[in-house]
Amino acid sequence: MLLSGTVVVDAGTTIEEGAVVTAGDSIVAVGDRPDLLEQYPDHERREYDLLLPGLVGGHVHSVQSLGRGVADDTALLTWLFDYVLPMEAEMDADVMHTAAKLGYLECLESGTTTVIDHLSVHHADAAFDAAIDVGIRGRLGKVLMDKDSPSGLQQETQTALDETEALIREYHDVNDGRIQYAVTPRFAVSCTEACLRGCRDLADAYDGVRIHTHASENRDEITAVETETGMRNIHWLDEVGLTGDDVVLAHCVWTDEAERELLAESGTHVCHCPSSNMKLASGIAPVVDYLERGINVALGNDGPPCNNTLDAFTEMRQASLLQKVETLDPTTTAAETVFEMATRNGAEAAGFERLGELREGWNADIVGLTTDVTRATPVNDVFSHLVYAAHGDDVELTMVDGEVLYDGGEHVGIDAAAVRERAREYATELNATPKT
Amino acid sequence: MLLSGTVVVDAGTTIEEGAVVTAGDSIVAVGDRPDLLEQYPDHERREYDLLLPGLVGGHVHSVQSLGRGVADDTALLTWLFDYVLPMEAEMDADVMHTAAKLGYLECLESGTTTVIDHLSVHHADAAFDAAIDVGIRGRLGKVLMDKDSPSGLQQETQTALDETEALIREYHDVNDGRIQYAVTPRFAVSCTEACLRGCRDLADAYDGVRIHTHASENRDEITAVETETGMRNIHWLDEVGLTGDDVVLAHCVWTDEAERELLAESGTHVCHCPSSNMKLASGIAPVVDYLERGINVALGNDGPPCNNTLDAFTEMRQASLLQKVETLDPTTTAAETVFEMATRNGAEAAGFERLGELREGWNADIVGLTTDVTRATPVNDVFSHLVYAAHGDDVELTMVDGEVLYDGGEHVGIDAAAVRERAREYATELNATPKT
Repeated sequence: MLLSGTVVVDAGTTIEEGAVVTAGDSIVAVGDRPDLLEQYPDHERREYDLLLPGLVGGHVHSVQSLGRGVADDTALLTWLFDYVLPMEAEMDADVMHTAAKLGYLECLESGTTTVIDHLSVHHADAAFDAAIDVGIRGRLGKVLMDKDSPSGLQQETQTALDETEALIREYHDVNDGRIQYAVTPRFAVSCTEACLRGCRDLADAYDGVRIHTHASENRDEITAVETETGMRNIHWLDEVGLTGDDVVLAHCVWTDEAERELLAESGTHVCHCPSSNMKLASGIAPVVDYLERGINVALGNDGPPCNNTLDAFTEMRQASLLQKVETLDPTTTAAETVFEMATRNGAEAAGFERLGELREGWNADIVGLTTDVTRATPVNDVFSHLVYAAHGDDVELTMVDGEVLYDGGEHVGIDAAAVRERAREYATELNATPKT
Repeated sequence: MLLSGTVVVDAGTTIEEGAVVTAGDSIVAVGDRPDLLEQYPDHERREYDLLLPGLVGGHVHSVQSLGRGVADDTALLTWLFDYVLPMEAEMDADVMHTAAKLGYLECLESGTTTVIDHLSVHHADAAFDAAIDVGIRGRLGKVLMDKDSPSGLQQETQTALDETEALIREYHDVNDGRIQYAVTPRFAVSCTEACLRGCRDLADAYDGVRIHTHASENRDEITAVETETGMRNIHWLDEVGLTGDDVVLAHCVWTDEAERELLAESGTHVCHCPSSNMKLASGIAPVVDYLERGINVALGNDGPPCNNTLDAFTEMRQASLLQKVETLDPTTTAAETVFEMATRNGAEAAGFERLGELREGWNADIVGLTTDVTRATPVNDVFSHLVYAAHGDDVELTMVDGEVLYDGGEHVGIDAAAVRERAREYATELNATPKT
């Protein structure tokens, strides 16, 4: 396929009147449109205002989509223990499949082609199947919880690890490599030392498997870990093997100097979730400091109950605006910086090597965007447009590995209206059940 | 017209399977759908998922729309004096008309039916004409600047006041009352005492005219005013007559205890602009404190160069999230609270008495919304949906005074694509001219 438009090659490089040519799962050429039209006369042609690399959701809970709006404006512990976790515990395989699918469709509609996805304790296979059904790229994992967790979610340590291993064998590196596995302990508070160490062992035992967990999101969380272990949370995670360049830590709002050094030295990836941190009143992550230290910071929407959207454009805007007001410096965290967080940094965190930029030989994960919308007219600067004015609704094309998944408002081969309808029915049932 | 759907009557009250009946410029009935279908069998019928009062943009710069994205990630003074003000100075009447029209179309498309609009020094008449053309409701005003201002914008005091008075006579309380006048000094820094006192005199001389200005947005601003007058900014504004229940002060980020008391006692309206305050790194307004004091706080997007959108849904979400993270309290500034800011509080600030709720006898300013979008499914709570998940793109109907202005993606009687095209041409010309 030959896609024409202003091409956003990476965070800082654009080609006006450019084009991207795809063949199979890859990009075979990126350059000036007239040249490529001549070189590839027989390719199917499409035109868009802007072409950009598919966005990467660095920390997502697709399966929480049915809980959108159930517990807004409540305190974090109420939100988590009275609503979100009991809801997850109640979901059967069909519900889980629908919830994940709804989340993935939302991602694809709004330009996110890759997710690092924190599933749930049970029925993770149903979510993996949903990801394969819709064709999204992702690093997914079943959640491990073996202590201080709600009934219905807490498992024996060995059971949690065994189920994880079985899922790695079934779902790691499948669907032509689009689906990769992340061992996903929920967080230090709800996992024993044996569990956390077992997670590291599993990641080491299987080539290409990574680790994804929450860390230092909340002050109560770091206090609980310190009380129990005598260590700051990041140091505790390091002690049990959960730092390194194969680890993605979501949030990292509350870290001290030594923890930040440790994150930088170990090459641990951080996923910043600004809307979630604001809405749950967790705090403001020191993103500018992390970036200055060379820490790889990705961007994530977190889950629909705490955001309440999976639109990565909204999150890019939020990341920039939040750091500006926090530092009282309007020049910080510029548009190009947050665009890089949502693309290449996310790809690095997710462990996809040929992803996050539009380059020859890289994966053909491409988004086509219209700019002919009143609310984003005129486009005086492409990166300003993408970060401050564009919205997921502007997406006209979403392609993963050269396969068109979303095209002119319709999902290819999937009846999204039926998924929404099923999601509404399941949500009504779930929310009809008292949670506490 | 008989509009069916879940009716959002006000911030806290909904009617499931409700309906709103309009006749002429007013709502004549609000209630249960079956009853109203029986009572009004001959009315034209429309169905929407949600019906809500038109949103109010409490502080907008429609005429800055051509500067969207021109000066992002720059410091405030650079932004204002090197880009935004020189751009305004360069705009002729045609450009001003197109810029304002683009801004108003964006508002209507995203559910804002009323604006409190800070125009420019010159060609304010062209913006008034644009507002009348598109049919939006608003309180608009020509900007006054008579000191320390860029050439091309600074006027003699009497000229500024005379031009204001001429515009009041021509445009106050026109288009069946949809258009009202606000005397609009830019801010204390760029207006002499004589000018500010003259603004108060004009507002007093013409029944129903109000005052709208910027106040205490920025630390440099309040320092400048204090150096010159020996007073804190709000006290200075009070001294020259610019407080009271006919005054709207945008921003009010940096106020002390005594100033807040003064705002509350005088009944002065405050318009909070969270995205703008974040993006320009102005600071975080003490909105929770203002609301506790009983100050009427409206919500505004400010201008496209500092937001970069006029979508009020984005701004409701931002207002809630920003206060939550600032106070570290996730229960604060709940969805209903910010919805009230964007509706009834805005209407009170703008001085429209029968506006901001869907009530019998009130203005038929109504928005119809679809909820059948993947990114906002399921709707577990109406106000959560409106504030945290909905987006201006969900608007299917916008009606002002019973007149349908935007209908199923199209502006009635206006070629929006042509306006966008003209806006792009003018923006290219404006931005081709060096600003400094």
